Amino acid sequence: MKINFCDLKDYDNQIVTIQGFVDKIRNLQYVQFVILRDSTGKVQVTIEKNDENKALVEVIDNLTLESTLKVTGRVMVNEKVKLGGLEVVPTDIIVTSKSLAELPLDITSKDSALRETRLDYRFLDLRREDNNLFFRCETLFEHALREYCINHNFIEIHSPKIAAGAAESGAEVFKIDYFGQTACLSQSPQFYKQMAMASGFGKVFEIGPAFRAENSHTSYHATEINMADIEISWINSFEDVMDMEEEWIKYALNKLKETYGDDIKRLFNIEISDTSIKFPRITFKEAKEILKSEFNYIGEKEDDLERKEENLLCEYAKKKYNCDFIFITKFPFEARPFYHMLDEDGLTNSYDLLFKGIEITTGAQREHRVDILKKQMIEKGVNPESLNFYLDFFKYGCPPHGGFAIGIARIMMQIFEIDNIREATFIYRGPTRLNP
Amino acid sequence: MKINFCDLKDYDNQIVTIQGFVDKIRNLQYVQFVILRDSTGKVQVTIEKNDENKALVEVIDNLTLESTLKVTGRVMVNEKVKLGGLEVVPTDIIVTSKSLAELPLDITSKDSALRETRLDYRFLDLRREDNNLFFRCETLFEHALREYCINHNFIEIHSPKIAAGAAESGAEVFKIDYFGQTACLSQSPQFYKQMAMASGFGKVFEIGPAFRAENSHTSYHATEINMADIEISWINSFEDVMDMEEEWIKYALNKLKETYGDDIKRLFNIEISDTSIKFPRITFKEAKEILKSEFNYIGEKEDDLERKEENLLCEYAKKKYNCDFIFITKFPFEARPFYHMLDEDGLTNSYDLLFKGIEITTGAQREHRVDILKKQMIEKGVNPESLNFYLDFFKYGCPPHGGFAIGIARIMMQIFEIDNIREATFIYRGPTRLNP
Repeated sequence: MKINFCDLKDYDNQIVTIQGFVDKIRNLQYVQFVILRDSTGKVQVTIEKNDENKALVEVIDNLTLESTLKVTGRVMVNEKVKLGGLEVVPTDIIVTSKSLAELPLDITSKDSALRETRLDYRFLDLRREDNNLFFRCETLFEHALREYCINHNFIEIHSPKIAAGAAESGAEVFKIDYFGQTACLSQSPQFYKQMAMASGFGKVFEIGPAFRAENSHTSYHATEINMADIEISWINSFEDVMDMEEEWIKYALNKLKETYGDDIKRLFNIEISDTSIKFPRITFKEAKEILKSEFNYIGEKEDDLERKEENLLCEYAKKKYNCDFIFITKFPFEARPFYHMLDEDGLTNSYDLLFKGIEITTGAQREHRVDILKKQMIEKGVNPESLNFYLDFFKYGCPPHGGFAIGIARIMMQIFEIDNIREATFIYRGPTRLNP
Repeated sequence: MKINFCDLKDYDNQIVTIQGFVDKIRNLQYVQFVILRDSTGKVQVTIEKNDENKALVEVIDNLTLESTLKVTGRVMVNEKVKLGGLEVVPTDIIVTSKSLAELPLDITSKDSALRETRLDYRFLDLRREDNNLFFRCETLFEHALREYCINHNFIEIHSPKIAAGAAESGAEVFKIDYFGQTACLSQSPQFYKQMAMASGFGKVFEIGPAFRAENSHTSYHATEINMADIEISWINSFEDVMDMEEEWIKYALNKLKETYGDDIKRLFNIEISDTSIKFPRITFKEAKEILKSEFNYIGEKEDDLERKEENLLCEYAKKKYNCDFIFITKFPFEARPFYHMLDEDGLTNSYDLLFKGIEITTGAQREHRVDILKKQMIEKGVNPESLNFYLDFFKYGCPPHGGFAIGIARIMMQIFEIDNIREATFIYRGPTRLNP
């Protein structure tokens, strides 16, 4: 199998075959240098211009940047070579694919092209070192999230993305022609992860796509997102859900820091958030009081938090607790869906988790008592008849349970302090972008 | 947090609070036994009918099966108790949710209701012990597949499920109303995982939904499936892809056997396939010859294998190599999509992997040279203009690459010898099933 460039030092003085993209070409009077790149690093290939190398020299003379090569040659550790202290001296070079001489964008610099151009040519945009690192980090982060779940006895579910009705009332959904019927694309696994609780699955997770037909063009919205969903049974209160989420996020952040902390520092100038501090927890009521007393700010909505308020509360958490995260609990029912459980004061047993200025999760204990659930539906203007299949889940015994969801791109944006979801998504989908 | 029933023995003589479903009730003259169930096991709760326990006894008198309880009491190791050698003697019992007395189906036996009824009440059907185990096994199996990838430096991608055009010509797709435009649901991440190769991602994987608008009602078809996709760069031939797939499947099968081998034997009477044997590899041509010479069978299609032939070839592999798997390579181009690379004889550098009688994967080296790719499109009746975005991927350098895809439910069906995909899917979707 292919030798990764990061491992080439183990092959000193051996004949190897390596493959990579042509990152740079320096064609000098007596020597040619070709820098090859793979996803693990770069290596210098050195060709002396002598009679023996005539064929090789000709290959390099006609080479274009970003072409791909298969090179057979000897690995020579050489301290004079700045790039990794080694070079490969080839005996054979095959051009496995030739790039056109002119690329539609300069892949060495993010600022060389408009964002829309970079999105049009996303496959080239993703060749940039920072993008490669970003998606390696996302891979590791997601894996750590799943690993935590596996270590804690969760079952992974794959809820259907084609649904008969809309998962959450009010929000806009994409319609599908389903063999003549109208179906829709799932906005969330909410009902199905709750179903898994009724099925006795105990604890479940899912990382998968969710679809929102919102005609929004902000830097935080996309019509298709990758969501992590969690639901756990047998909780005593929504505090159990918060405990789990905090531990889960810290587990993944620590893994990220251990493996890629230095690279992230180098390419993004970002330190991964400190995970030794317990995330502060304040109630919605306290939050509104703090906004007034500390920032002299009164938001427009009495029953909810707006973006500006989220921002200020994060500022507060940073200053007071030196923490990038803060939980806001006990939101008014007005701001929450019908399935959140209410406490004796009529407030929801729910929370938002804010991270570096924005909300990244909503979590809650769910109402699992069918009569109260029906009552809450009616209060919210949802017709219980339309959700009979869902109400059934609670009729034959259902554990007390709660959970939350988190958009992967959104938390990744916040970790890396990237200002637009288009940059933090492999292939972005928005109201006016269906390509590539 | 909740104590798992499988761990209760560690709490001998301690006061604990436990939660679970009511699995059984035995109300005798002097004593009541309630068996509670969680996703990790069962435990007996014992209530003596005495004056002190009056309130508790009344709770149990009115209890229905499948309700959920929260029980506080003392754990007593007691060898006389058949169930796990311990019981819990309660001081407090709270009914956290009460089940209706009659369930729409008997959850202790699969054969007690028609499959369609069980699918209507899938949330109850999934309470069965064998279903719980099945989805625990799927969780572990998928995790192992991902773990292998992580250990081998793959990047995880999430390709868009909303696409502008159909991924594979000919096959039927679901249409979406996308802000007035017509978009469609992705049938496969094929083009995007290849894009990731052009982006220099090296090796990628994705496990996610794929959608097929086929009006098929067989035991192997669903309109929404969960697919694992792999694509790797810098290969020397499609044999590299086969090597990787074989190692990957064996890795996951071994994990499954280690963790759940005994339970699978007990509940499904299945032995996990032997992974010590190298999967045999024969060409399509050899396969046809074997079918003729060993089974005196000539299939209807000259250029492809039908189900019956797959079945016989697996029989052959089992008899000759004692192997549940067999690779069939070098299919004629007639049976393959335009993007498979051809060899000097005009045969594809592709393979199918058969497992216990059916095909579970198609893999191939892809054609990455844009001129040849265009030619192959035309030969297959695909208009290159319609796939310009895809052809672009190959114009600016693209590594030689290959990959494959595998339906998770399909391989799980074969491992567990389950005869219908409806039983191996959390929530099945078919032409006439959109609920629950």
